[in-house]
Order: sequence, then C-alpha cells, then structure tokens
Amino acid sequence: MIREQNKLIYVLPGVPKETEFFWQQIKKGLPRGDAHFYRSEIVKFCGIGESQFEMNIKPLLTELPPSLKPAYLPSFGEVWFYLYSDQKNLDTVERAERVIQKIKDQYHQYLFTPFGDTLEEACGQLLCRFHLTLSTAESCTGGLLIHRLTNISGSSQYVNRGYVVYSNKAKENDLAIPELIIQEKGAVSEEVARLLAEHVREKTGTDFGIGITGIAGPTGGLETKPVGLVYIALAEEKQTLVRKHIFSGDRIVNKTFASQFALTYLFQALRKKYECLP
Amino acid sequence: MIREQNKLIYVLPGVPKETEFFWQQIKKGLPRGDAHFYRSEIVKFCGIGESQFEMNIKPLLTELPPSLKPAYLPSFGEVWFYLYSDQKNLDTVERAERVIQKIKDQYHQYLFTPFGDTLEEACGQLLCRFHLTLSTAESCTGGLLIHRLTNISGSSQYVNRGYVVYSNKAKENDLAIPELIIQEKGAVSEEVARLLAEHVREKTGTDFGIGITGIAGPTGGLETKPVGLVYIALAEEKQTLVRKHIFSGDRIVNKTFASQFALTYLFQALRKKYECLP
Repeated sequence: MIREQNKLIYVLPGVPKETEFFWQQIKKGLPRGDAHFYRSEIVKFCGIGESQFEMNIKPLLTELPPSLKPAYLPSFGEVWFYLYSDQKNLDTVERAERVIQKIKDQYHQYLFTPFGDTLEEACGQLLCRFHLTLSTAESCTGGLLIHRLTNISGSSQYVNRGYVVYSNKAKENDLAIPELIIQEKGAVSEEVARLLAEHVREKTGTDFGIGITGIAGPTGGLETKPVGLVYIALAEEKQTLVRKHIFSGDRIVNKTFASQFALTYLFQALRKKYECLP
Repeated sequence: MIREQNKLIYVLPGVPKETEFFWQQIKKGLPRGDAHFYRSEIVKFCGIGESQFEMNIKPLLTELPPSLKPAYLPSFGEVWFYLYSDQKNLDTVERAERVIQKIKDQYHQYLFTPFGDTLEEACGQLLCRFHLTLSTAESCTGGLLIHRLTNISGSSQYVNRGYVVYSNKAKENDLAIPELIIQEKGAVSEEVARLLAEHVREKTGTDFGIGITGIAGPTGGLETKPVGLVYIALAEEKQTLVRKHIFSGDRIVNKTFASQFALTYLFQALRKKYECLP
C-alpha cells in the first residue's frame, strides 16, 4: 500500500491466496500500511511434490499462532513456501523465523534458495563454487535446458556446450550413439539417454553430462511409448543416473518439466557434494 | 461479456488500450454483449518497427469511419494489428475487412500470420511446404533459438540439429571455426557468425544454417564490443546474410531479440521463395 497525495494506492499480487487475503483486509475496512504486514523469507524446494511437502511440514506448523499463516506456491516441479501475518510484532517474527528455520533444516536436501533465486542460478552457483563444468545433449527438450542454464550471467564459466540432437543422424554423428541401439531400443529409451549423457561428458571433457530423450508430443506417441515419456540422464565420472518420467502436459509443458527435472537431478548431485564439504 | 443466470460477467484483457476501451464503455453505463462488439482478424508482422508501421498505414486508416479504431500491439520485434468497433454492422465489418486487406497486400512481405500464429510456426509451415531443413549454431542465445523452433509440433521434419557452442573450444571442435579467426576477429564478430552458419549448414547437410554470436550481458562487454552486440548469420546454398545488432535489454531480453531476428531473417528468406512460386 502506498499513501500518495492523500490517496491510498493498493498494489495487488497475482497469486490467488495472497489476493484473497488482501481483499478480506480491505473488506474489513482496514486500510493497512506495510508496517502491519509481515512476510517471512520465501524458501524454495525442488524434487519434492507440493502435497507431500504440505503433509510433511504440518506438525511443524502446529507451533504457529493463528495469526501466522502458511502460503504454498507450487511452480513447475518446485514448491515455494513462506509464512505471513497481519500482525507484525517481535513475537510473530521470531516464531515465524523459528519455524522457517526448522523447515529449512529438515528439508535441506530439497532447498535451493540458499544458492540462488532460481534453480538454474542455484546450480550455477554450486558449479562455480566447485569449479565444475557441464555439457548437455538434448533431444525432446530441444535446447530449453541449455537455454535456461545460459540465462544466468556468468554461465560461460561452467557451461561448455550443448547439442540438440533432434534427428537420429545427429545422435549418431555428434554423440556416437550406435545406430544399432537406436534401432533395437528406440531413440526414446533409457540406453540412449544414458549414452547421450556419458558421451557428451566424455567428448567435451566436462564433469557433468546431461542427456534427455523423449516424446514431447502431441504427436509421435506409441502404445508402448506414450506422449510425455522422457528419459533424463546425468553422467558423472563414476556413475550415471537415469530417470524415467511420463509427463501429461502439452508440448511446451512437457519440455519445461523435463528441463526442470534435469536441473533438479543436477542440483541434487551438487547438493550432495556440498554436504560432504568439511 | 457472458450473461449467465441473469448476471453479466466481464472478462477483461490485459492489454492497456483494450482495457481502457472497456472501462470507457462500462463507465457510460452500457453493459454490452458480444453482439455489439466487432474485432477484425489480428494480422502480425515481423521485420518492421511499430512506429514505422503506424506511420506507413496512416493514410489507409483515413478511409475508416470514426467508430472503427486501430489497435497496435508491439511484441518483441513483431507488430500485431487489428481494427475494432462497438458498432457491429455489415457496413463496419465490410469497411474494416477492406482496410485490413489493403494493409495485408501492401505489407505482405512482413506479414507472417497467413502461415502461422507465431513466427516460429510460420517458419515451420514454410519449411515444410518447401521440404527444407535447417540446423543452428548458437553462442549468446544459448539454445533459445532452437528451443523456439522445436516448440512447434512436427518440427522434427525440418529441424536437423542445433549446436550451442558456448566456449571457444566448442566453436573450434564442433564447427571448425579456426582458432586464428577467433584470436584476430574475436568470438563475437561478423566472420565467426558467418562461419558458424555456413559450417553448420555444410556439416549437417541442411538447406539453411543459422549462426548467432554476441554478448548477452550484463558482463562481458568491451569498449569496441558493447553488451547487446549480436551478429546473426543465415546461410543458404548460394549466399550468406550477416546482420549486426546492438540490443539494449537485459540478458534475457537480448537473447529473446536475437532469436527473434534470426527467425525474422529465416522467415524473410522463406517468404521470398514463396513469392517466386508460380
């Protein structure tokens, strides 16, 4: 709320729950300034679903006074969380901060905000910190993953290069995926995802290689391989992780989710290294 | 406007000019149904600036009755245009359609909507129609161009593959950009953009090759090569076009504009081929 030339100006958020809250306040005939409103820091998690998160943290929220309310904002494979209250006082702030800290401690392996405001930024910060590099080999995401990674200023320090191997020929020529494997297992298969990740890593001499292959849709699905089927592989020196997903959105949603989970697996690998720091 | 259970529901647009128009109508105490409102088709242009377009078509608009109003919507290197009126009758519709047709005829070389609702879709439709293919070699756009191209269902028919050659080593290894040229001219140079486009086209055996190199920012600028400097090259069999731009947005805006102009040059090349059809 801004008070300007004896007028009150309300700037309303787009998020339904927050807007509702504001309308309720206004209905009560309580024009309020910032001074009365409290919002905790926003903590962001990846790799955990909203409903699971909400269920898990419920016991922690019983400690809160009724004036402090939780807000959950799910967003493409992420959960954003904060506490808010219309009674801003020392007690409210302290109790909120205590609960937020407990949530952060308990779910630290999913929490990325200490490293950046977005997941790609968090990955970037950790890659920089450990002096690690990565390259990507994307099929169905068509470059979205490396686009997101390179949205971060300074990403040239850790992004070596990316291949968008849309055609089978490209997979064979650029990343030495054997024609036989594509014929036997299909271009959309665990094997091809694994080889994409491992070969791009070896070829470019990076610490991480990410491979993605899938069917973004709406066409191209088969009975055994439906639209939305995506394999995501993350190769490191000593191991390669491959995960299978079936997304149920449209083409662009499926691309977005696939890039999101690739970043999530990368973050989790980096997070583990961070845990091991002395 | 929807009339439901004796209630009027207004759904308001986000575009300022349109919203303003609606508020004026509501202020006048005129609850209006769809029946009274007319909007022409939306025609979309690329490769022409909004102010130039607005100036150019002014003479054509003098033919319109005062009730028919023009709406311009600039959008990242595109101009969207339509006519609207709160008096929907045969005369209004006919006069609007006549003017829209004249604008379409006069600016046909910039008009992409006959081929698709988005520029990437329009490019895709024309590539399909002519059975042409393309590959990309991106540096500063970091995969955004091929991400946009592959957002279109069926793009596997014409997108062969894409390289995101972020590091100099990648430019040398994957696209045979001579180290000497990078040293002498710099990675961000007309020469490197040209070679990226030509080499990716030759290497992948496609009809078109697109090369982009630039400084997305916010860091990495030099006095002679400022942030926002981008070279975009489009290689065909017999010629290569290279264009220099200096964008003044933030990192993501610069990436978006660079991908937009690359699509615009591709569209223009395809549009020319279309003109030559018998």
